[in-house]
Amino acid sequence: MKKYNDTALSPVERAEALCDELSTEQQAEQLRYDAPAIPQAGLPAYNWWNEGLHGVARAGTATVFPQAIGLAAAFDSDLIRRTAEIISAEARAKYNASQKQGDGDIYKGLTLWSPNINIFRDPRWGRGHETYGEDPYLTARLGVEFVKGLQGEGKHLRTAACAKHFAVHSGPEAIRHEFDAKASPKDMEETYLPAFKALVEEAKVEGVMGAYNRVNGEPACASEFLMGKLREWGFDGYFVSDCWAINDFHAHHKITETPEESAAMALKAGCDINCGSTYLKMMDALEKGLVTPEDIHRSCVRALRTRIRLGQLDKTEYDDIPYSVIACDEHKAVALEAAHKSAVLLKNNGILPLSREKTGTIAVIGPNADSRSALIGNYNGTPDRYITFLEGIQDSFGGRVIYAEGSHLFLDRSQGLAQAGDRLAEAVAAAENSDVIIACVGLDATLEGEEGDTGNQFASGDKNDLYLPLSQQLLLQKLRETGKPMIVVLAAGSSVNIDCDCDALLDMWYPGQYGGRALADIVFGDVSPSGKLPVTFYKDADKLPDFCDYSMAGRTYRYCNDDNVLYPFGFGLTYADIVCTDLSYNDGTVKLTVTNQSNTASEDVVQLYIKGYGEDDIPNHSLCGFARIRLAAHESRDIEIAIPCSAFETVNKCGVRSITGKRFTLYAGICQPDELSQKLSRTRCVKAEIIL
Amino acid sequence: MKKYNDTALSPVERAEALCDELSTEQQAEQLRYDAPAIPQAGLPAYNWWNEGLHGVARAGTATVFPQAIGLAAAFDSDLIRRTAEIISAEARAKYNASQKQGDGDIYKGLTLWSPNINIFRDPRWGRGHETYGEDPYLTARLGVEFVKGLQGEGKHLRTAACAKHFAVHSGPEAIRHEFDAKASPKDMEETYLPAFKALVEEAKVEGVMGAYNRVNGEPACASEFLMGKLREWGFDGYFVSDCWAINDFHAHHKITETPEESAAMALKAGCDINCGSTYLKMMDALEKGLVTPEDIHRSCVRALRTRIRLGQLDKTEYDDIPYSVIACDEHKAVALEAAHKSAVLLKNNGILPLSREKTGTIAVIGPNADSRSALIGNYNGTPDRYITFLEGIQDSFGGRVIYAEGSHLFLDRSQGLAQAGDRLAEAVAAAENSDVIIACVGLDATLEGEEGDTGNQFASGDKNDLYLPLSQQLLLQKLRETGKPMIVVLAAGSSVNIDCDCDALLDMWYPGQYGGRALADIVFGDVSPSGKLPVTFYKDADKLPDFCDYSMAGRTYRYCNDDNVLYPFGFGLTYADIVCTDLSYNDGTVKLTVTNQSNTASEDVVQLYIKGYGEDDIPNHSLCGFARIRLAAHESRDIEIAIPCSAFETVNKCGVRSITGKRFTLYAGICQPDELSQKLSRTRCVKAEIIL
Repeated sequence: MKKYNDTALSPVERAEALCDELSTEQQAEQLRYDAPAIPQAGLPAYNWWNEGLHGVARAGTATVFPQAIGLAAAFDSDLIRRTAEIISAEARAKYNASQKQGDGDIYKGLTLWSPNINIFRDPRWGRGHETYGEDPYLTARLGVEFVKGLQGEGKHLRTAACAKHFAVHSGPEAIRHEFDAKASPKDMEETYLPAFKALVEEAKVEGVMGAYNRVNGEPACASEFLMGKLREWGFDGYFVSDCWAINDFHAHHKITETPEESAAMALKAGCDINCGSTYLKMMDALEKGLVTPEDIHRSCVRALRTRIRLGQLDKTEYDDIPYSVIACDEHKAVALEAAHKSAVLLKNNGILPLSREKTGTIAVIGPNADSRSALIGNYNGTPDRYITFLEGIQDSFGGRVIYAEGSHLFLDRSQGLAQAGDRLAEAVAAAENSDVIIACVGLDATLEGEEGDTGNQFASGDKNDLYLPLSQQLLLQKLRETGKPMIVVLAAGSSVNIDCDCDALLDMWYPGQYGGRALADIVFGDVSPSGKLPVTFYKDADKLPDFCDYSMAGRTYRYCNDDNVLYPFGFGLTYADIVCTDLSYNDGTVKLTVTNQSNTASEDVVQLYIKGYGEDDIPNHSLCGFARIRLAAHESRDIEIAIPCSAFETVNKCGVRSITGKRFTLYAGICQPDELSQKLSRTRCVKAEIIL
Repeated sequence: MKKYNDTALSPVERAEALCDELSTEQQAEQLRYDAPAIPQAGLPAYNWWNEGLHGVARAGTATVFPQAIGLAAAFDSDLIRRTAEIISAEARAKYNASQKQGDGDIYKGLTLWSPNINIFRDPRWGRGHETYGEDPYLTARLGVEFVKGLQGEGKHLRTAACAKHFAVHSGPEAIRHEFDAKASPKDMEETYLPAFKALVEEAKVEGVMGAYNRVNGEPACASEFLMGKLREWGFDGYFVSDCWAINDFHAHHKITETPEESAAMALKAGCDINCGSTYLKMMDALEKGLVTPEDIHRSCVRALRTRIRLGQLDKTEYDDIPYSVIACDEHKAVALEAAHKSAVLLKNNGILPLSREKTGTIAVIGPNADSRSALIGNYNGTPDRYITFLEGIQDSFGGRVIYAEGSHLFLDRSQGLAQAGDRLAEAVAAAENSDVIIACVGLDATLEGEEGDTGNQFASGDKNDLYLPLSQQLLLQKLRETGKPMIVVLAAGSSVNIDCDCDALLDMWYPGQYGGRALADIVFGDVSPSGKLPVTFYKDADKLPDFCDYSMAGRTYRYCNDDNVLYPFGFGLTYADIVCTDLSYNDGTVKLTVTNQSNTASEDVVQLYIKGYGEDDIPNHSLCGFARIRLAAHESRDIEIAIPCSAFETVNKCGVRSITGKRFTLYAGICQPDELSQKLSRTRCVKAEIIL
């Protein structure tokens, strides 16, 4: 038996043994994302690039969950873990099927380049909806669960997760290939790095992907600072460049002269796998003395170690996952559950829930009403069944449903010959012929997304402002003028100011394949909404710091002031009226009482925020714990929530983290403790002073 | 009271009276498709351009029926009339609603530029699916009913239909703006003109649209020959140019030097309305002496006469058609009925209908399986509910349905980084995990359509050959290799050779919004298919005459020989076994007996073909009558079908039509009387000799 086949040895020992059988050139080839076969080991060609952000992506049919920002809005550690378990089971089933047919193409492997745990620093960032929002604690908690769900607890990794984009990466998309993000040591430690640290230390994430941008002068894929952090945290997996990011070193960052220098710089820093083509020059770099055979060997061992951990040299406990699990009813039920839990009710004057019996005709209007794109966001799989908002209402409501597109998503007319606003007359007629309007507006991945996506036409994927496209603003205004009751349903992955009066406003994010069914369940009161904003909704982008400014000052609920806040982080209404009382803290554990004062059962999210009073403490308060609860009508219950030691830590200007404060205020509520959320919420926060 | 408001006068008297109040310049402005307001008459601006080929098109939500070629496949005069009645009711409802809001934009008027009654002369023509197929008799019968349905029988026209594109027009799309179609007098009279004649004489079609191409040297929008035919037939409506066709006179046909000359040439020939902008030069043409005020006045009267016939100066019986009729359940039920009747079963080894009970898992595979585009063809409205093939099967089948895209519609891979055939492994896995494959292949309007449509990427809208795109050929081949039973569902608007063995082949055309429900009803035997091919399906385009050759020799079932025929015109199986016997003819009436020899109730289409034996007679035989029938299991019934005198006419080489023959053979059957259909059909034809 070859040593690399000896399952009694550790993966790294086996990887070393296999690597030792390869020539340096063969080892270098294994650092390509599209790695060639290693016939002597029976390993076929392997393409490292696969995606699974909210369902196996780009690989055909899969269960499609809400976009990541929606999963974050659910504030539900258990849900996101189950979601990731399903994603990895479907990825394994697909892998089993395609391997059987000798197809090892892109998007068919076991190395999923998810989750995206960047901090959604600025609401204009087009890729913000791929993240878990603006809060490092929430991002870390959800990211850890997601990674655990993907990787499983078996002998082998079920799939290998990848924490990306390390680090700081958050726009602008248009200049990501040459941009130098300047972040202070304090902001790094306090905001940009905690989630990566948690995923490495707690979740043992198998992969880390470097970002396109530079960080304080160093390209993220070859940053001594960032690589040092990984070592400090005990990272034990593979490091991959973002796609064609190493090419940026010489082509756009201009920090090297040649592809060989770029390849060498990345490899020596610790970037094992090159998504891109720059490592094709590795043997040239070797010849020029820019790298050593040992450099290549080191990364090759790490690459093969991951593949051995995935069981690619062995039989695994996952080899029998059948094809039939893909998009099975059980999986799709979780997608529906996630869509229910992610929906955030931002406004409700009592119109919701609608009575099926008392409503005659509903007009479902808007460019996102019957849009499949608005369900799936980006980095998505293909559902075997979409239920659009319109379809969901139609299926759930016995009366007449009238549909009008109302406006185009972004363009002001159908084509050159038509007048601007060519769909408005129909929308107004539809509204006038109905009892209530459900206006489905928002964005999709063609308006907020990633630079270079062919579909993405708008500011290279970023948003210019926080308003709806003008075509949709005009639509809402015209609809409001009809005087009909209007429920606005927003599908978007970021802070949007609809800037129009309405009776209710429900943010569905990009809710996944069953988004329309989830909407109908909520609209008609079969399910109470319970999601919470994982990002601050601002009034106006112009009052935010410059998009290129990576200081956290004035950004996110922890550092901003209220003037520009439209809806605060953590905000979201239910159909119930749940209050928190009797807060106490003892030795890492918070106790409180939650009481449903209403006749309506609901889930809700208890949020714990802490505030310190030292000079270096965060100016506002920080999330330090949360728990999703379900209460029957008038039920009251005592609950406990653990908060981590780190909640009491202060980060000084040098980026050093330690407990320096003595006095803290702890807040518990189903909202943030600030003025605005008090005003908007029907419930109150409770607070307690803690003296360490 | 102004004379033009005097409803006791005829429309033409009123139009003359109104016209007389306008300056010559104002009259000239009324010849624009986007005519300005006539404030003194209370007439708002009016845009003549609207479409209603198979549902009100491009104007937002509407009931979307099968594409015209599918409506033709139903061989159902009553159905197509009801379809058109619904289209005109919805157009009126939309007109009422938008007029109320002062919106008279494009696609919101009452002048529908439908139907397209060109002869589908060559299966490569991208716009063939807008037509009623290759047979002039069928085209005329269906076109007449469609026009009557659109225009109604009221005091006013409910909407104004438009017979287009006059005449001969049928590709190639790429050269339509400069092409000279050369057609013999015999082919004109025998094939290209009969449907136009019928629509003018029988249906009193209110509009005729000239084609882009030249016809025997004359541009169709200013052809003395064609305009003479209209006069001969007593045409009494308005003539409109195809859009920007008059611009082609100087820009592409090069038969005039300037826009003024083009405008003058068209106007003098009798083209009243200019879709385009060339008539903006009409006053310059007047100044140069190229047209007279009388020329302008004559066309202006005709234009206003149509609008008066539509009731635009009066209250009409249609003013109260409510918005709620649009896409109402009753209308959509007819769309479903039409989809049922249009489906053509081309092959069935007994696998269909599928038993719901005996089938465990169905794999629905293919790029058209979950495609909304494949339902709606082109010149389409927006459904308020699509039911894709996949959705239809899912909704109708209690067991597991597995979906795989299988291949891309046309491209061989998802994107540059993927391998060709990147969806095949998934398709094979889906197939292997199922009991039966429903493979949904074909085209959509991005692959066959109109030159200049932005979506249309393929040979300017035409097809290069009759095969599926290679990506789909490969898919079918791979699926067949799995050995699983395979039902192929074709969505396309033209002759397609799938070139792959299968257990059943069902052509759904572009079946409209409920196409998936119709498919499921047929697949599971709730409805027996009963559509018939309105075009010949050929094996190979290379054996056809040159695409640019407008001689009918070797084209369509009437002139071709069998060698290249894959499925003949008129062919289509049912789940029953219906035979025709006891044929007799007497004085214009055919009598025969139809008997259902099976246990299955079904509709079917009895077809009558006639063959003459003179030197100038059509080489094969010609459809001269048809009747859609419904028979219960084992039911037998005597039926009568009228055939027109013209069935016995012969067209000589000069294009003169007269009865010269004495002896004819009359065939009746649910198929053509040729060798091939005998072989394919389970039923036999019956024939009778007629001596006049």
